[in-house]
Amino acid sequence: MIDHLRTQRTQPVGVFDSGIGGLTVLRALRSHMPSEQYLYLGDTARLPYGSKSPETIQRYSLQAAEFLVSRGIKCLVVACNTASATALPLLQQHFNSIPVIGVVEPGAAAGCAASRSGRIAVIATESTVQGGAYQRAIHRLRADASVVAHACPLFVALAEEGWTSGPIVESIARRYLEEMFSAAGAPDTLLLGCTHFPVLREALQVVVGSSVHLVDSAETTAVALKALLQSKQLVNEAAQIGSVTFMATDGRERFARVAAHFLDQPIRSDDVELVEPTFALKK
Amino acid sequence: MIDHLRTQRTQPVGVFDSGIGGLTVLRALRSHMPSEQYLYLGDTARLPYGSKSPETIQRYSLQAAEFLVSRGIKCLVVACNTASATALPLLQQHFNSIPVIGVVEPGAAAGCAASRSGRIAVIATESTVQGGAYQRAIHRLRADASVVAHACPLFVALAEEGWTSGPIVESIARRYLEEMFSAAGAPDTLLLGCTHFPVLREALQVVVGSSVHLVDSAETTAVALKALLQSKQLVNEAAQIGSVTFMATDGRERFARVAAHFLDQPIRSDDVELVEPTFALKK
Repeated sequence: MIDHLRTQRTQPVGVFDSGIGGLTVLRALRSHMPSEQYLYLGDTARLPYGSKSPETIQRYSLQAAEFLVSRGIKCLVVACNTASATALPLLQQHFNSIPVIGVVEPGAAAGCAASRSGRIAVIATESTVQGGAYQRAIHRLRADASVVAHACPLFVALAEEGWTSGPIVESIARRYLEEMFSAAGAPDTLLLGCTHFPVLREALQVVVGSSVHLVDSAETTAVALKALLQSKQLVNEAAQIGSVTFMATDGRERFARVAAHFLDQPIRSDDVELVEPTFALKK
Repeated sequence: MIDHLRTQRTQPVGVFDSGIGGLTVLRALRSHMPSEQYLYLGDTARLPYGSKSPETIQRYSLQAAEFLVSRGIKCLVVACNTASATALPLLQQHFNSIPVIGVVEPGAAAGCAASRSGRIAVIATESTVQGGAYQRAIHRLRADASVVAHACPLFVALAEEGWTSGPIVESIARRYLEEMFSAAGAPDTLLLGCTHFPVLREALQVVVGSSVHLVDSAETTAVALKALLQSKQLVNEAAQIGSVTFMATDGRERFARVAAHFLDQPIRSDDVELVEPTFALKK
């Protein structure tokens, strides 16, 4: 048992996203747990998930998770808000031999901690907003919270294009958010419920005003995973800086180029492993 | 043989797109050939194609075409610029028993016909621009043409969001196009090399100026298909208004809602058939 645990501890942490946005979560994980090895899988052949139906998101998520589990991970982080909001219980049930955590619960916790008034705005993809997972998670933590949720699909396109600041971003943000933040009793907290959105943070702050707290899931997910690994004695205690293996289901060059925006460091396309997009899902 | 032709004539025209943009082509086809039956397939479970690699676009296109062929179509229109630019020769080779046409050649023909100066700008998805199919098609028709091509991925997101006019669209268009159209020797023709772009036409015209010709593939594709069906004696001569069957690989509600922008007519989600996204491709 002890030998088994020792082996398991040195296994990598699996991180899964529909594409590249999950790298904002990976960055926080590495900052909190630098000794761990990471396997990052972006399902770039089928992105984005946020405009797709729950059934399709669940099928794609199961396949991606199955692929990472087959590579021998010790735990799985679903670093995609859409997949977390739609497929997390299914993934936890299907892969019950390892811990599986998402970003919605940690994000909701961050929102509740930041808000004084209990009035919290959530912005996310269409699918995440429609599914209502953030609204439910916030109400579980704080029953009296008043939550408004709004889909902002153009923010994803802006982040992928690398247009992260300036008048165009601000005018789009104004169109999505102005009404929500100009009314009496406006939210005091804006929860960024999509991993693409943190790269637009400065522009969003300009639009909603400096008194509004902007929070995302990355930091609290890292804190939650660290606590989970500690409780299961799964922390890699080696005195090393762990490696990261990048895997994508399509387009290594594009992955490397867009990933550089998110990780704020250069990535070579040779460092991205192209993996088979059609996973064999065991029933 | 004559009986066979008679049967074939009444078979539907297959129209394939990565999602919804191809409906701009369908509209032109129906206007030129109202008696035909149409089967429209949008691969919404895997859209967009424009940011994906050539290999993935080819695989998805083959599967979608195989699905339509299995439904008994008499010809195939690849109503997606990205798929036409990347997979047309492969599709023509693979499905050589029926005519297969794309939108790139007709679009290039429209651009060459509209341009006096021979200076033509093409805007399209990243994949279409990088592949160079438009540039080659224009040069085949007009060897002395001067072609500039520019990827405008945010236009796709704008069209899907239904933000088709106003200051936000114009400021994004200005950022993409201003430099190209303000220099001396600017293009006199702007070819809309993505089926999403015609819904932004008015805003684009404001930005490039009224003297620039805006052309797209929809009309010329319809004319080309009509000529092709006539030459092969495949025109449906029934005195009727033909039906349209909408099929999507995901998200009937979203398909119906976004399709309404493109067809400029209401579509009920019940009228959209959900088809299996994993096609069995015969080798």
